[in-house]
Amino acid sequence: MSDALIELARRMLAGDRRALARLITLADDGHPGLAHVLREIHPRTGKAHVIGITGPPGAGKSTLVWALAAEYLRRERQVGVIAIDPTSPFSGGAVLGDRVRMPANTPAGVYFRSMASRGQLGGTSRSVRGVVHLLDSFGKDVILIETVGAGQSDVAVRTLAHTTVVVSVPGLGDDIQMLKAGILEIADVYVVNKADRDGADRTAAQLASMIEIGRESARAIGHGSDDGWVPPVVRTVALKGERVDELADALDAHRTYLVQSGRWDTLVRAQAEAELQEALLVRLEQLLARSPVAARKDQLIGDIAARKLDAYQAADALLAMLAPGA
Amino acid sequence: MSDALIELARRMLAGDRRALARLITLADDGHPGLAHVLREIHPRTGKAHVIGITGPPGAGKSTLVWALAAEYLRRERQVGVIAIDPTSPFSGGAVLGDRVRMPANTPAGVYFRSMASRGQLGGTSRSVRGVVHLLDSFGKDVILIETVGAGQSDVAVRTLAHTTVVVSVPGLGDDIQMLKAGILEIADVYVVNKADRDGADRTAAQLASMIEIGRESARAIGHGSDDGWVPPVVRTVALKGERVDELADALDAHRTYLVQSGRWDTLVRAQAEAELQEALLVRLEQLLARSPVAARKDQLIGDIAARKLDAYQAADALLAMLAPGA
Repeated sequence: MSDALIELARRMLAGDRRALARLITLADDGHPGLAHVLREIHPRTGKAHVIGITGPPGAGKSTLVWALAAEYLRRERQVGVIAIDPTSPFSGGAVLGDRVRMPANTPAGVYFRSMASRGQLGGTSRSVRGVVHLLDSFGKDVILIETVGAGQSDVAVRTLAHTTVVVSVPGLGDDIQMLKAGILEIADVYVVNKADRDGADRTAAQLASMIEIGRESARAIGHGSDDGWVPPVVRTVALKGERVDELADALDAHRTYLVQSGRWDTLVRAQAEAELQEALLVRLEQLLARSPVAARKDQLIGDIAARKLDAYQAADALLAMLAPGA
Repeated sequence: MSDALIELARRMLAGDRRALARLITLADDGHPGLAHVLREIHPRTGKAHVIGITGPPGAGKSTLVWALAAEYLRRERQVGVIAIDPTSPFSGGAVLGDRVRMPANTPAGVYFRSMASRGQLGGTSRSVRGVVHLLDSFGKDVILIETVGAGQSDVAVRTLAHTTVVVSVPGLGDDIQMLKAGILEIADVYVVNKADRDGADRTAAQLASMIEIGRESARAIGHGSDDGWVPPVVRTVALKGERVDELADALDAHRTYLVQSGRWDTLVRAQAEAELQEALLVRLEQLLARSPVAARKDQLIGDIAARKLDAYQAADALLAMLAPGA
């Protein structure tokens, strides 16, 4: 099995788009053989600029992502797009499938994939990270990851992206609601989309003053936010393609800033750490799934539920089975 | 140190409210000694009805939680309230502190705690679970957990609560947006709050028809949703305390349903499993933090970042250090 997967990985690295699609499906499904594939492609990863695009429903993120992809194509850069949908607990599938998200005419040269977010914690970041590695090794220069501004998928994407874009629209909620959403402060670049609507100036001004307040309070408590990057606020009309070039410029500027300030390396290291953590969890799960450990685990869960043991006692009993020497 | 903590736990079990407050702070901080405390209190846990209350910003969740707490007090039940705030990456603290969330006059007999959600995956559920155990062993009959309807804290609370309430308000977004938010389908009880506003009937009717569609599609694909519980839609005006008694009745009915159908035991077992998983992660972290493993881990992260090794190779190298026999 793993030989066939490695063969598939080699065809993908040689430019075979169908091999890419099949590998992405395996990553999305959390296929256990993916570790072999990632080993094969790992030396070819690490070059793409990964950009997370988030914001509330109705902000026009999908349209913006496609306008941005088209702009990158004009700049002769290869683009991959990953759209993460919240999963429906009823159907087990994504609430919005490709049908809704996929534009009628995908620009040639753009690879698009819609993925469902995972129920379990960490599931999304693991599968999306796999897809990012695949697109990266395939030669994509830019990978855009679109998430609905709600749910754990945002947290997952934050550990994957070099640059985070938060998309807003004029008049969407008052200030405290924006704060409450908790996503505003994570942006490297802000977009006020649908900027031909009334109130765009006011929203942009509010954002700019929030950025300034954030920087001041960060300075006051000694957080190192005063590091030379002031998040710009770009006003786009994605539907008409207006000022999308300005957004692409801002994203390029952020990448240059990351590289020159040494932050790119810090991010790459943080991502390596997150990935190691995930791999450890996968290995731990695999160890726990083996009999007789799995049977003992089942028993221990019953003991915790019956209040005979607490979780740490049970964990220690299990680890003793795995690691007699630890 | 652990002796002092166990002494503190015993004082808490004897009814000392200040001991409870100190232990909750330790749980919130992720104090390593908490495992000792949880061992001490574990036999006294498992009685409280844990209710998660979620919904979009502006739905009036905080007001509803307080009205509900007051209603439970009238029914002579002890209440604990946990409000989970999104963390600000700038300040490192909660975006909205007790100052905003805490009502001017907390009813006596209600224990209130505001907690910040954690940046790392799983951090929130671990610390909130600890606080739930503490309140439960202290003798709280009902524990209300309020989360902003966005971010990983919702996922965390879903694994902690027996009953999930989703709060909506008239006219908040159209249908597809509600679906997109991905939180509607998880409810055991729906609330349309601010039901004295225009459009309350329409929103309640939309919810009821969505519930019916969801049940039908679940039946169609053979999911066992047809299990006797139809999520009710309760229209409250929390600010005036209107129909909050009806909500409390619905919540009691859901608890009765869970117990009689055997689902309570299934939930308790699922929670025990999640808790064991968390304890395993804590132990794994502790093993990894020891030298010389920690030093080797640092080196391996550098190797992943430099594309010399992939994450699984690095994970295997680390596990080999922990468990020579595995």
